[in-house]
This record gives sequence, C-alpha cells and structure tokens, in this order.
Amino acid sequence: MDKAGILMIISGPSGSGKGTVVNELLKDEQFALSISATTRNPRPGEIDGKHYFFKTKDEFKNLIEENMLLEWACFCDNYYGTPLKYVTDRLEEGRNVVLEIEVQGALQVKEKYPEAVLVFLIPPTLDELRKRLTNRATETAEVIEKRIERAGEEIELIDRYDYVVINERIDEAKRDILKIVCAEKMNVKRNENIKKLFKGESL
Amino acid sequence: MDKAGILMIISGPSGSGKGTVVNELLKDEQFALSISATTRNPRPGEIDGKHYFFKTKDEFKNLIEENMLLEWACFCDNYYGTPLKYVTDRLEEGRNVVLEIEVQGALQVKEKYPEAVLVFLIPPTLDELRKRLTNRATETAEVIEKRIERAGEEIELIDRYDYVVINERIDEAKRDILKIVCAEKMNVKRNENIKKLFKGESL
Repeated sequence: MDKAGILMIISGPSGSGKGTVVNELLKDEQFALSISATTRNPRPGEIDGKHYFFKTKDEFKNLIEENMLLEWACFCDNYYGTPLKYVTDRLEEGRNVVLEIEVQGALQVKEKYPEAVLVFLIPPTLDELRKRLTNRATETAEVIEKRIERAGEEIELIDRYDYVVINERIDEAKRDILKIVCAEKMNVKRNENIKKLFKGESL
Repeated sequence: MDKAGILMIISGPSGSGKGTVVNELLKDEQFALSISATTRNPRPGEIDGKHYFFKTKDEFKNLIEENMLLEWACFCDNYYGTPLKYVTDRLEEGRNVVLEIEVQGALQVKEKYPEAVLVFLIPPTLDELRKRLTNRATETAEVIEKRIERAGEEIELIDRYDYVVINERIDEAKRDILKIVCAEKMNVKRNENIKKLFKGESL
C-alpha cells in the first residue's frame, strides 16, 4: 500500500463542531495540522512556524505568484493562505494533514490538489444547529439566524465534497472520519504501485 | 443518511481468499449474498431460490432480453447470471449485497449499476499467492502456474475497480471491507437527501 498520507479538508457550518472534531483527530499521531501563512501581525505568544508562518505582503504575493499556496484569501486587508510545501512534506512523511477551512478555500485546494479528500461536517438537524449556536450564548439572535442562513447556502455546494459526516457525537464523528481515511488509503487511485508489486516478482 | 444498502463486488485471483472473506462478511446480518440464476440442472440438495434460481434456457434468454440481469455469462453450454431484482430488493431493505464474481462480470455490473462498489482482493505478495495455491495440494504445478499467470492478467484491470484490499489476515481484510462500506455510506453521492433535510426544515 502507498505509505503517503492523505490531505483531508474539513468544512461545515458554524456550529457543526468542526473545530472540536479536528482537535480530536490531532490527538492521534497520524494526523498533522496544516499551518497557515498570514500577513497579519503576530499576537502576543504566537510563534512563527508554529501558530502561523508570518509573512510580509511582498513575501505573500510572491508565494501566490509562484503557485506555492494551496489556497489563499484576503480578509480585512490581511492575507491568509496554506503553504503547499509544509503540507506535502508532512504527507510524504506518511502523516495525514487536516485542514479546517471554509467552502471556497476547500474548492481551491481540490482544484490544485485533486487527491485531497473533502469532508463536510453537519449537525444531525437544523434544529440541533440552532440549539448549538444558541447555547454558545455569545451571539445575538440576529447573528444566529445569519449563520443558519449561511449554513443553508454552504450546503448547496456539498456536491463538490467527497463525504458528508453527521456530527451527532464527537467520538462517533471522529471514528467515521478515521474510517474514511482508511478507506481512502485502499482507494485504487492511491495504489497504482500494486500492479508493479505483482509484476516485479517472479512472473 | 441514506438507508439503502450497498452493492459490493468482490473479485480477486484464485488464492486471494475471497470465498473465505465473503463468508465472514455474511455472518453479519447487514450483508446478504446475491443468488445467481442458472440453466444448469440442480444438484442433489440444491434448493431453487436458495442456492440458485433454476431457469430453462428460454426463461434465461428472456431475463437477458428484458435487461433483468446485472451480469451474465455462459460456461460449458450453461448460462449463469445475477438477477437484478433480487439484489435491488435487498438493497432497498437496507442490507448490503455481496457478489463474489470474476473481473469481466464485475465490470458488467459496474456498467449497469454504477453505484456498485468494486473491491479487488489480493494476497500480500505473489510468493504468498503461490504458497497458498501450493498448500491447497489440489492442483498440479502446471495449473498453479496458470492461475498465477491469470492473476497477473487480472491485476491489469485493477484500475477499473474502486478499492484494493490486501488479504494478509482474514479478520483484518473483513475489517477493511467494513470500513469501506461505512465510508461509502458517507459518500456525498449517496447522500443527496442531505440538502433537502436542511431545507425541509424551518429555513
């Protein structure tokens, strides 16, 4: 079997629990988190190469021009992106890389790196989503309704994803994602060396 | 999630252990074996509708003409095939159907029923395959070499399959196949109803 790791993108509406699921996956040595590049200033305690790769705008634009980002976007006059090399180095080491990213970024990654596995995480029902957002008690009713509306828009793009995982319970969602990783490693497309294995021998 | 079962085709060279793996899967209630139709005469103890659906040649030709077989072939003047309706009835009940079938038949099924999941089972090495065939002690050295040659030919068609499973140990191969089934049930293509679920509610 191919020993290379799998690049897994996890998206999902606010309240789907994707942050928690990603943290659970990262407790497992086989997973590595992708580190983003950004032009924003480091906050106190943030370490270059650990929390972010901090770049000047010129450096960042260079990365874009030289096609060295898996995806990038600009928010509030700051650039954010995913350096390709950091990801491919981890994959070559045999680790799976997890990227928690919104839908547009996920589709950019899939275009540049079609072997990426796109997982869309959803809560079991829309009512449950509303309940989770309400229980956070950090947002106004108006913000919650906007987020739910946005979830409805995001779900329209689900056809572009590979898998949908229902996050009813974190441990089950994690187990489901691990099964997807195992199955993907058995995908024929990732095992083209199998033919050689059978031929290289005494046939 | 879609409750329909998955049609899983298992192929692999003689000596790959596919018969044993299929029997292990069938111990699990979620799996049903497909029952073949044939024009050959029943052997003592064989029950129509359990071991085979026994058909006359005219009946069988009718099934072919009416596109009611997932695949069929003719060996030694007898017809063998897989009735579509028996399979789709089980799938609708939510059971997964397993079909152990050679490569040409598997490709016929995939053409008629693209949702089928094609799994190619292989031994870990060619040496192991030779050892298994030799240990059977039922075939001559010449027959064994022919089977190995045939395995080399079959592996050439592996690109047409979805997954490759290495059968080093039966229990692990079974576990791998169960993971594939779970992952396939989360495949976006099998979950088109998810969008409706999110819309049907109070959005």
